[in-house]
Amino acid sequence: MSLSEFALIDRFFAQRARQGPRRATLGIGDDCALIAPDPGESLAVSTDMLVEGRHFLPNVDPQALGHKTLAVNLSDLAAMGAKPRAFTLSLALETPREAWLEAFAEGLFALADRFDCELIGGDTTSGPLNLCVTIFGDVPAQAALRRDGARDGDDVWVSGTLGDARAGLGILRGEWPAERFDERERASLHHALERPEPRVALGLALRGLAHSALDVSDGLAGDLLHILERSRMRASIDVDAVPRSSAMSKLPIETQRQCTLAGGDDYELIFTAPRHVREAITDAGARVNVAVTRIGTISALRHATDEPSIAWHDASRSPLSLTLHGFDHFDAH
Amino acid sequence: MSLSEFALIDRFFAQRARQGPRRATLGIGDDCALIAPDPGESLAVSTDMLVEGRHFLPNVDPQALGHKTLAVNLSDLAAMGAKPRAFTLSLALETPREAWLEAFAEGLFALADRFDCELIGGDTTSGPLNLCVTIFGDVPAQAALRRDGARDGDDVWVSGTLGDARAGLGILRGEWPAERFDERERASLHHALERPEPRVALGLALRGLAHSALDVSDGLAGDLLHILERSRMRASIDVDAVPRSSAMSKLPIETQRQCTLAGGDDYELIFTAPRHVREAITDAGARVNVAVTRIGTISALRHATDEPSIAWHDASRSPLSLTLHGFDHFDAH
Repeated sequence: MSLSEFALIDRFFAQRARQGPRRATLGIGDDCALIAPDPGESLAVSTDMLVEGRHFLPNVDPQALGHKTLAVNLSDLAAMGAKPRAFTLSLALETPREAWLEAFAEGLFALADRFDCELIGGDTTSGPLNLCVTIFGDVPAQAALRRDGARDGDDVWVSGTLGDARAGLGILRGEWPAERFDERERASLHHALERPEPRVALGLALRGLAHSALDVSDGLAGDLLHILERSRMRASIDVDAVPRSSAMSKLPIETQRQCTLAGGDDYELIFTAPRHVREAITDAGARVNVAVTRIGTISALRHATDEPSIAWHDASRSPLSLTLHGFDHFDAH
Repeated sequence: MSLSEFALIDRFFAQRARQGPRRATLGIGDDCALIAPDPGESLAVSTDMLVEGRHFLPNVDPQALGHKTLAVNLSDLAAMGAKPRAFTLSLALETPREAWLEAFAEGLFALADRFDCELIGGDTTSGPLNLCVTIFGDVPAQAALRRDGARDGDDVWVSGTLGDARAGLGILRGEWPAERFDERERASLHHALERPEPRVALGLALRGLAHSALDVSDGLAGDLLHILERSRMRASIDVDAVPRSSAMSKLPIETQRQCTLAGGDDYELIFTAPRHVREAITDAGARVNVAVTRIGTISALRHATDEPSIAWHDASRSPLSLTLHGFDHFDAH
């Protein structure tokens, strides 16, 4: 690679950035970009670093990678109830290949344009493939969907279906035979893995309804625990109520449970909300065209010294002891 | 490495973050941090990715690396006249070593605390060593020191001395014998390379005085051209006026010029300002204890179709034709 090649990449991204929406006072090309939240609002800020072999396979379709690189960050805004505004992109590349970059940018900017999210800065360097996005959204601080707001008696909800991405990864890795699924199912699981849809509209619709929320990146079991720990609460979850796609039924029940509860890479929202807004939440889901499902309840800790935890049970309310620890998921650091 | 090791690192940084100043509404531990600029101001945003072999040598002192990782980002805020507020840190590591991380964090947080800049989020992943910081500062949009504001008749100024970092790198690389310098000089050049001091106070002091500014990361020649291109101006620079440390005189004059004009990694400010504020700028430099030196002037392009360019001359005003192209610097992508 040469310096001029990297200068070309910079120019390429800057050019694409200028074609998009303009929401920054000052964008690419200066020492800093300048942005400001809407009056009275705060900026929600999140950052994610994606590394080959950890977050995507070496032979991943670059267009899908462009999509996912931004999608996982948009998902963090969604989980906060924030409206996307802008992002920065830093990338390290061993050898810039024009076709690869073109496709990557295609996937990235298609999603950015769809969510009115402007590229305002970044950095390009030579090095082992690494993608780092920092994303910014607008939200009134008091309306933000935090992790520490779950309350005694809240319902626990989840959007979409869980486990599909992990099932798709299992096919790519040969953990279960691809032939178990028909072509449509394989495509759908693969799509879940490579093209997660950030639940931005749902996050916005949950402002004023949900007490707490986060997005599922490491798996329901681990991520729900983050809400419980920060809210000092416990949860009771009906494993059979956890929504899963029809394709998942082709896997053994144990594997289904591992995929849905600890598969990770789902980028669906888990949220808690009081009972009296059940109908409002169902309506919100319908309005933004995203399924929302109640899977359990939040309770206060019995003793102040108790550790926050999840009690799993099945549809008949029989307690389940699940072995989820050690089930590796793709996105684990 | 194991997942739990990475969880420990996260906790380690989060803990250190909590010991620092608190300027965010919501910091580490949720899907997003929440920040807002001071009323009426904007957030200046910049991001830099540092890669081993490109931006630092494999055997670099981790404490110095922690310092430099944040310093190069603070320098971008300085160049904008922005007041540091917060930053995110994403890092990929092959194998987390506690002593290395401890020292890295030591260098990082020492600088963060000094500039009242809070760690509000980040990401840790396993992978080839990579450090990505996104930084935020406050600045009234109309007071920001941009690159496109240079005007006909402006003086060109530079802070500190240039070329020291490149001279220090040349010693490490064996491009010139270390014995040419005494111990104090070697230490000073090495310090310039590994511990650049971001000119934050100077940037703030230049608000309302400078028409344009940027920080020198790729070398004076290349970086000044960014101001000229965005301002559609040309510059005349007195090469002999470009400030250099006494240690630099131990190198041949040609090498001195290459180091000062195209060495890079300086993180000093180049800025332009009208003649009538010369005294105010000298006073500002004295107030923040940073040398500021006039090195040339800005002129309008003779014809609208002319390309922005730099005319170099020596102290006797004889034009110089310099061969700077191809002189490699450390920080070049």
